[in-house]
Amino acid sequence: MLIARLIDNVWATRKAESLNGLKFMLAEVIGGTGAGQHLVVADIISAGIGDRVLVSTGSSARKMLDECEDIPVDAVVVGIIDEDCNIE
Amino acid sequence: MLIARLIDNVWATRKAESLNGLKFMLAEVIGGTGAGQHLVVADIISAGIGDRVLVSTGSSARKMLDECEDIPVDAVVVGIIDEDCNIE
Amino acid sequence: MLIARLIDNVWATRKAESLNGLKFMLAEVIGGTGAGQHLVVADIISAGIGDRVLVSTGSSARKMLDECEDIPVDAVVVGIIDEDCNIE
Amino acid sequence: MLIARLIDNVWATRKAESLNGLKFMLAEVIGGTGAGQHLVVADIISAGIGDRVLVSTGSSARKMLDECEDIPVDAVVVGIIDEDCNIE
Amino acid sequence: MLIARLIDNVWATRKAESLNGLKFMLAEVIGGTGAGQHLVVADIISAGIGDRVLVSTGSSARKMLDECEDIPVDAVVVGIIDEDCNIE
Repeated sequence: MLIARLIDNVWATRKAESLNGLKFMLAEVIGGTGAGQHLVVADIISAGIGDRVLVSTGSSARKMLDECEDIPVDAVVVGIIDEDCNIE
Repeated sequence: MLIARLIDNVWATRKAESLNGLKFMLAEVIGGTGAGQHLVVADIISAGIGDRVLVSTGSSARKMLDECEDIPVDAVVVGIIDEDCNIE
Repeated sequence: MLIARLIDNVWATRKAESLNGLKFMLAEVIGGTGAGQHLVVADIISAGIGDRVLVSTGSSARKMLDECEDIPVDAVVVGIIDEDCNIE
Repeated sequence: MLIARLIDNVWATRKAESLNGLKFMLAEVIGGTGAGQHLVVADIISAGIGDRVLVSTGSSARKMLDECEDIPVDAVVVGIIDEDCNIE
Repeated sequence: MLIARLIDNVWATRKAESLNGLKFMLAEVIGGTGAGQHLVVADIISAGIGDRVLVSTGSSARKMLDECEDIPVDAVVVGIIDEDCNIE
């Protein structure tokens, strides 16, 4: 999984129907040589801007969306890193 | 997902039969250290040159093409970012 | 998908049985910050050295090989870009 | 697979239910030009901080979690490299 | 697929049971801008140190392992490049 910080909300009114109702956020990878990479993640565990999150990508991301195996999403927040967990 | 700007149309007359009828566009990743990467995306939600789009890649991309699970496509436009959504 | 130029043939006599009969070519990614990356692609639509091609990777690549879902190939030519399509 | 060194534990109390009970660790890729990249891995074979580990990523990672095919994890420790195996 | 040169054996006594009996080797990508990247590959076609090999990654890699679809491996040697095939 990637560690990223959520830096903004992403709004896309015209999108695949199956994505309606999903919340999208802009995330920036933190730590290590991959730091600074941007990706858009779906969030269903109410993470907020500024949170450090665990992001699963690829087919594993869709497993987060329960029975909705057919949603064209490839990056999802699967956890919010505890504030006192000082890793970088 | 990646955020990219659509910069051109891509024409490939000789291609896999299952790709016939699909529209292909050249996209450039924007924002973060991955900016500048080029990829070709399939588009079925009528995005246009200059639009900023959300792109799903890998097996998740095929989920955008409904029952056509067997199309050899690995990057698809899944949303068009609102003009007033100022993220970068 | 990636855009790449085919630069050579690749010969591998000792290989997985399921790959017998498949043609392999060396491709170089063109355009954008990913340009210059090399990968080996399977080709079943008779592309040739010098052609610019569309390459699908990952599980989507296997979808190009019809009912042979079980072939251990992760990059396949899915289209040949038209000569007069001037993208870079 | 990637070779990485485990450098820390990662705590995320708020996470997907299916991840409860799984141990997460911060890993740093070692060796070759990819060295220095950080990723978070799930560990079920009791690896510890400082160990050099083999990490599988993508859908292959979920295969490590036995019947739990539906866990949204994309990187798992699949082996601990022997101390006297001097590769870099 | 990647082209890589096998540079060492990798020993990991403590590993997933399903990996027992599999031979692991350290490979270095050769050619193009990705050259120098290290990865560990499973080998079942008796490749040796110094060989240039074709490596499939991701879910395609598991297809090389016949009916063992459930082995948590994400990179496998699928061919040995002929000695007189002078590509770089």
